Amino acid sequence: MAEVITSAGNARVKAIRALRLRKERVRTSTCYVEGIRPVAEAVQSGAPIQTVVVAPGLLNSDFGLQTVDEARLHGVPLLEVSPAVFRSLSERDGPQGLAAVVEQVWEGLDDARCTSGDTWVALDEMRDPGNLGTVLRTCDAAGACGVILLEDSADPYDPAAVRASMGAVFTQRLVRTSFAPFVDWARHEQARVVGTSARADAGYRDAEYGERTVLLVGSERAGLSDTQRAACDLVVRIPMLGRASSLNAAVATGILLYEVLQHRGTSAR
Amino acid sequence: MAEVITSAGNARVKAIRALRLRKERVRTSTCYVEGIRPVAEAVQSGAPIQTVVVAPGLLNSDFGLQTVDEARLHGVPLLEVSPAVFRSLSERDGPQGLAAVVEQVWEGLDDARCTSGDTWVALDEMRDPGNLGTVLRTCDAAGACGVILLEDSADPYDPAAVRASMGAVFTQRLVRTSFAPFVDWARHEQARVVGTSARADAGYRDAEYGERTVLLVGSERAGLSDTQRAACDLVVRIPMLGRASSLNAAVATGILLYEVLQHRGTSAR
Repeated sequence: MAEVITSAGNARVKAIRALRLRKERVRTSTCYVEGIRPVAEAVQSGAPIQTVVVAPGLLNSDFGLQTVDEARLHGVPLLEVSPAVFRSLSERDGPQGLAAVVEQVWEGLDDARCTSGDTWVALDEMRDPGNLGTVLRTCDAAGACGVILLEDSADPYDPAAVRASMGAVFTQRLVRTSFAPFVDWARHEQARVVGTSARADAGYRDAEYGERTVLLVGSERAGLSDTQRAACDLVVRIPMLGRASSLNAAVATGILLYEVLQHRGTSAR
Repeated sequence: MAEVITSAGNARVKAIRALRLRKERVRTSTCYVEGIRPVAEAVQSGAPIQTVVVAPGLLNSDFGLQTVDEARLHGVPLLEVSPAVFRSLSERDGPQGLAAVVEQVWEGLDDARCTSGDTWVALDEMRDPGNLGTVLRTCDAAGACGVILLEDSADPYDPAAVRASMGAVFTQRLVRTSFAPFVDWARHEQARVVGTSARADAGYRDAEYGERTVLLVGSERAGLSDTQRAACDLVVRIPMLGRASSLNAAVATGILLYEVLQHRGTSAR
């Protein structure tokens, strides 16, 4: 194994630290993943890991050390750094001494298919990376295909999104596009585009979601625009009994994804 | 109106700034609420506002100015500060010039009743204030009574929780207790304590939630402990189809609260 890097000014260390910035993540098409569990999730899901970063002086957990061994078995290069250097990279209070640089994986809209039994989630202007990560985690749990990010959206490879996704960023399929091609794609795939609105007539429990479904989630601030609503094949209402006029986007997505699952379960499985 | 405070070192300004710290929020039993919408929510829900803080040089929005007028009509004292002083208080990038100091409202466990049609959410060790705020927002939307915080939990009056709650922190009832008295309370109220587990036999769609329900949500890291599971009258399973073993606690709470609502709707309303 190569010698341990002890300088926070080392070129490779500086390049990894720069991945805090979205523009550097975009330029290199990589992301920085920190913590034993997130790195283990990347390894176990077969994500394209460029480098595993280990601080032997900090990493004590058996599970963490096993994860390093597993990455090594898969031929992933290791970068050993001192505790001080690891702390200079870390975004956490109590760094665990394990991180990784992982390649971003994006899918072209043309390659994304929506076949019978498939559900996608399309997100418009989701600005909070933690919320985006939670949507990815929810998609994974509810058996969705992946997320289509429309227009400006938070970066799913932002460290906060990676953390909140609990590994789902490595397993859910990710597509980036704008609204018009998205609508064309949904028509071509014969997918039902389903939106939500507090003013919709159809209750979400009674709706027909179809066999190919895309949940269209509007911006967190303004909900669905008129254009977006017009592009929906179906708009459903989740009852709002309190003072608030909407649910958190990840919570609403969870309620609808599990509703679609239930409809599929009773009709198609 | 009193003169505009221009010194960030002013004693009242320093006392407000100190509310960033949980111990100061606890000591004074107040919280700091920032932004036009959160302050408007506090005013409209009749929260006990001690002071409205206004920076006339920053606050331009008609809705914001109306909110100030409404607070004044209710006899709330105003504190006028310069833009620089407001920025010294602010936790935001683009401060809107409107904030408030609001009294915390807590309810004793003995005063919290669970009557027919009531649903409470009990949270164990929810550490993330944003997540706690999202649970409050979801409770409001789904018509729950409030939240019972067990053991160590994030502060619902943390600015991140207040923000994420979208005003629900001012309308949902808040109780703090530990596990044993909580269990006694649930028995006394004849409430059904419902937990979730990936290994439960009962599917969440088919369960009987009863007419008085408490959803017991385990810690975000470890889920329900054996003791907690043993205290449940019912443990339900939300299907997990992906790699992850659990949902985000706010998402799981949302799915279950809307399920309870549905059961009530078909059986009791």
